[in-house]
Amino acid sequence: MDFDILQPLLKKGLTTKIVLLVMDGLGGLPISPGGKTELETAKKPNLNALAEKSVLGLQQPLLAGMTPGSGPAHIGLFGYDPIHYAIGRGVLSALGVDFDLQPNDVSARGNFCTVDENGIIIDRRAGRIPTEKGAQLCTLLSENIKIPGVEVILTPEKEYRFVFVLRGPGLNGEVSDTDPQSTGKKALQAEPFSPDSKKTSEYIQEFVRQANDVLKNQSPANSLVLRGFSQLPKWPRFNDVFGLRSLAIAMYPMYRGVAKLVGMTVMPAAQSMEEEIDMLEQNWNNYDFFFVHIKKTDSYGEDGNFDAKVGIIEQVDALLPRILALKPDVLLVTGDHSTPAKMRSHSWHPVPTMLYSELCRPDGIREYGERACLKGSLGPMFPSYDLMPLALAHANRIEKFGA
Amino acid sequence: MDFDILQPLLKKGLTTKIVLLVMDGLGGLPISPGGKTELETAKKPNLNALAEKSVLGLQQPLLAGMTPGSGPAHIGLFGYDPIHYAIGRGVLSALGVDFDLQPNDVSARGNFCTVDENGIIIDRRAGRIPTEKGAQLCTLLSENIKIPGVEVILTPEKEYRFVFVLRGPGLNGEVSDTDPQSTGKKALQAEPFSPDSKKTSEYIQEFVRQANDVLKNQSPANSLVLRGFSQLPKWPRFNDVFGLRSLAIAMYPMYRGVAKLVGMTVMPAAQSMEEEIDMLEQNWNNYDFFFVHIKKTDSYGEDGNFDAKVGIIEQVDALLPRILALKPDVLLVTGDHSTPAKMRSHSWHPVPTMLYSELCRPDGIREYGERACLKGSLGPMFPSYDLMPLALAHANRIEKFGA
Repeated sequence: MDFDILQPLLKKGLTTKIVLLVMDGLGGLPISPGGKTELETAKKPNLNALAEKSVLGLQQPLLAGMTPGSGPAHIGLFGYDPIHYAIGRGVLSALGVDFDLQPNDVSARGNFCTVDENGIIIDRRAGRIPTEKGAQLCTLLSENIKIPGVEVILTPEKEYRFVFVLRGPGLNGEVSDTDPQSTGKKALQAEPFSPDSKKTSEYIQEFVRQANDVLKNQSPANSLVLRGFSQLPKWPRFNDVFGLRSLAIAMYPMYRGVAKLVGMTVMPAAQSMEEEIDMLEQNWNNYDFFFVHIKKTDSYGEDGNFDAKVGIIEQVDALLPRILALKPDVLLVTGDHSTPAKMRSHSWHPVPTMLYSELCRPDGIREYGERACLKGSLGPMFPSYDLMPLALAHANRIEKFGA
Repeated sequence: MDFDILQPLLKKGLTTKIVLLVMDGLGGLPISPGGKTELETAKKPNLNALAEKSVLGLQQPLLAGMTPGSGPAHIGLFGYDPIHYAIGRGVLSALGVDFDLQPNDVSARGNFCTVDENGIIIDRRAGRIPTEKGAQLCTLLSENIKIPGVEVILTPEKEYRFVFVLRGPGLNGEVSDTDPQSTGKKALQAEPFSPDSKKTSEYIQEFVRQANDVLKNQSPANSLVLRGFSQLPKWPRFNDVFGLRSLAIAMYPMYRGVAKLVGMTVMPAAQSMEEEIDMLEQNWNNYDFFFVHIKKTDSYGEDGNFDAKVGIIEQVDALLPRILALKPDVLLVTGDHSTPAKMRSHSWHPVPTMLYSELCRPDGIREYGERACLKGSLGPMFPSYDLMPLALAHANRIEKFGA
């Protein structure tokens, strides 16, 4: 829904409570024809019992046939159209390593790479150097690079990947990639897209020059490329848009990061699903909206481990009574996208979704699963960003439109 | 999907194969209440068996309640929003007679008509003169009209209809119709919509002046009107937009024409459905995308011949094993629009659609028919232009969006 339409309709002073329970990569596929998906396979008496009192359907995270990354997928669940509210690659990388990005920082995703004597890239991943080696190189660069006027902060990710952050006054992220995204080419110049980013592009060029000098005798990682220069987006804040006091509970940096991106209050990293529910209980009275993120459904999907993904869903089912005991006005159960173990990757398939509230009009579905959701009243392919207005409505938080 | 969003997500170097099998005018209606549609009536064991391994739904060619012509209906199946990518009437007429339209040609749809002694149109179809008479008049005009600087090419269609083509340097189709589309009025002046089309409008006026002189003693076809001046549209090419090598296989000019319009390679006219499948087999290794068009479902629908339309669907069902033997990664089965025999015309009813792939999430539907498709996971009214991104996704050809 257009935020401008919603704004004047939000009721004030309410304390009804909404829980958004996200099992990452929840949607699945049968391993063989005629079989069941991960969710259909899981024994889930509590989720199924809730289905009887809920409305169900399948949400589409982006557009037909498009597979979302974690960032856009969550932005959609938070009620923002993820095509319109796009997050820069550099910002996502920074969120993923729990980097505390400041409003003026410019971040980028970096790769260590291998170049030949003419500077031509011959391996974009520097032979997939070990993670420790990548970390050493980040330290080496940090110790040796000095650029007057700005600070450069390098944070290692996995293997050849790192996060580049430029911090200082007057920076602007509208700068082109140095990563040509193929071998057989030299790294590109970081060019400003506007006069406002000229100074930033010069800092980046100076960093690249010094970095190449520091790395030149290393092997195989004797150079680097950067892409996705970006800054924290200036979006309307979740709490303002929806009139809620929101709290995010997650175990992994990326998900706490996207919640922070829209201005939610974010809990420190939980160490287990049980601790996530502890946090929910402990903070119940101080917030209206709770985003609870379960990671391992996606991890096992990416591993191709069908049975372990089923197991996580069953563990979530066992935790459900603790959530219901809090008597949320609205409980949304969904995933951010599908990660079928069969595909070992994110996919475009719509995501089984259930909305429980005393005000929902039950649609007669008695199971929470892909095929059961198909017959539900939310439809087989509704946009993920419709969930927030639906949740607000079922929490009795939206006035009627027009007299 | 916005082509600019899709472009950077297309995977390179893949050879997965997609077949788009279009039964023209496939959607139907029961002849009497409580009955079955043409597709529901047909014995189609192969299509039904495929349904069990597919996702199903009903696609909407345009907007709710809008009935498409063949041009827009196919443009939608090819992944272009047919409301945005509109084809000029003149261009469509030229495609329909297999005219080899060149990029600078200006074409229009022409009617021979009858005018009184004051030039007032009294019959817009000149008493529906026989097709041979229309052809003779085209020849008579071609032999007698001379306009310095341009060539006029007239191609007879059926009865009083013909295709007008102006060929020469610097032409521009932004010119108003001479056809007032009602009787009791004089033909209109061809006016330029922009300075760039002034010269073209003058050529057209000169053609009209000379044509009226040549026709003045004919009866009843003593004049003519022209409408839908247009040129080949400058659209992004299908192969570039979707990263595919495409081949079109069809029996009739219109369908080979719309495929050519988006830049597909087009086979010579096939003489039978069997020959169409021969062509598919023979060219299997050289293309990634195959548009196969079946005409007669529509022809019999237009004739009001329910049983004959059923028969064509059964013939297609019998040919299906030959297509499946090629092991396409994705097989789309649909129509371009509905042509219920009961209505003897195109209609707005959504079109039963089936997408088969090993990566689809089967939705438990065991029949390919209008009512069965209603329960499918593609939904009851999805836009036809979503089929191309869905096909690409199921052929594993789209990278994820965002990280």
